[in-house]
Amino acid sequence: MERLSVSTRKRREMVEITSLVAKTAKGSGVQEGCCLVFVPHTTCGLTINENADPSVSDDILRTLEKLVPARGDYRHTEGNSDAHVASTLVGHSVLVPIHKGNLVLGTWQGIFLCEFDGPRNRQVWIKMLPSIQDQPVEL
Amino acid sequence: MERLSVSTRKRREMVEITSLVAKTAKGSGVQEGCCLVFVPHTTCGLTINENADPSVSDDILRTLEKLVPARGDYRHTEGNSDAHVASTLVGHSVLVPIHKGNLVLGTWQGIFLCEFDGPRNRQVWIKMLPSIQDQPVEL
Amino acid sequence: MERLSVSTRKRREMVEITSLVAKTAKGSGVQEGCCLVFVPHTTCGLTINENADPSVSDDILRTLEKLVPARGDYRHTEGNSDAHVASTLVGHSVLVPIHKGNLVLGTWQGIFLCEFDGPRNRQVWIKMLPSIQDQPVEL
Repeated sequence: MERLSVSTRKRREMVEITSLVAKTAKGSGVQEGCCLVFVPHTTCGLTINENADPSVSDDILRTLEKLVPARGDYRHTEGNSDAHVASTLVGHSVLVPIHKGNLVLGTWQGIFLCEFDGPRNRQVWIKMLPSIQDQPVEL
Repeated sequence: MERLSVSTRKRREMVEITSLVAKTAKGSGVQEGCCLVFVPHTTCGLTINENADPSVSDDILRTLEKLVPARGDYRHTEGNSDAHVASTLVGHSVLVPIHKGNLVLGTWQGIFLCEFDGPRNRQVWIKMLPSIQDQPVEL
Repeated sequence: MERLSVSTRKRREMVEITSLVAKTAKGSGVQEGCCLVFVPHTTCGLTINENADPSVSDDILRTLEKLVPARGDYRHTEGNSDAHVASTLVGHSVLVPIHKGNLVLGTWQGIFLCEFDGPRNRQVWIKMLPSIQDQPVEL
């Protein structure tokens, strides 16, 4: 399992990690299968969305902030309840197909770490799940 | 990896694809494992929910439309920011167990493509992840 | 595939199932890979979030209740539309890495069954996805 580091710079931010994940997946040598991308945190998440126009990420973050305001009637006393809730709405992992040795995504898709309580240093775990037919048995 | 096509007919619509996925999974010959269903798009999603009463899908779509209105203070200029945000809330993949050669779901569960910016032709990618114990080594 | 039972006690409740999942994963003997945790229901979900302070779960449930109220302009006539919608927002599965024979999660992470229409007896399905390199071929 690969454990990568990603630094975030703002409290709420979407950081694209597509090339980092693609490079790690390629380096694994897995030809067919899937790649699990997982964050071991509870105040950030992972999503897939458009990476061509950065205003899409802005709209996602701003909508989440409206739905789950930073200040609200929360019981958790650390001041980051919104970040916990947003991470559950977005999710903590994405699973992406590997085909012919490469991560395959749609034309407009990128993988983003969604920071909801930064800036922080975050870990991104990558676990390859090879399909069996791609692994010749050497006798 | 199988790449299937699904046509949608409305701007926002939930299209059940359970039988399409089940047939593809069955055809793969995989006896035990999981089936990744993935959409390579950024304005539609995939979810699992009740397929017996179509009013459940209506309630999901109508609630999402309240939470993420079609018209709002968005920055992305293509007029489909709501679709991008909704796809991140719903997610772009589902992972379903395969047992004894069949896709296994709960009694009331169906797999739905959630169209948020149709009508369009959409792709659904299916990648089988067999568990290793099901693959006898032929010597 | 393991099928476990979990009882819930309230209409909306987050029940931590981390140790149940970890024990099942350990018992499978899989050394490297992933563990799919899946609920075969349409009115509950699964998420990962903080398990140290129970007020985090409270904040998640209370925010979901604000976003998707129990009583609303719903069409499904069984009175649990909110539960169906919330389950799609949270999702029906989590996929967690297995490393050196153990489930690996972040320091603050726990796995929760999110009950939205209890109390009920719920099933939790667990499917192991071993990475191939961990399965020596016995000749």
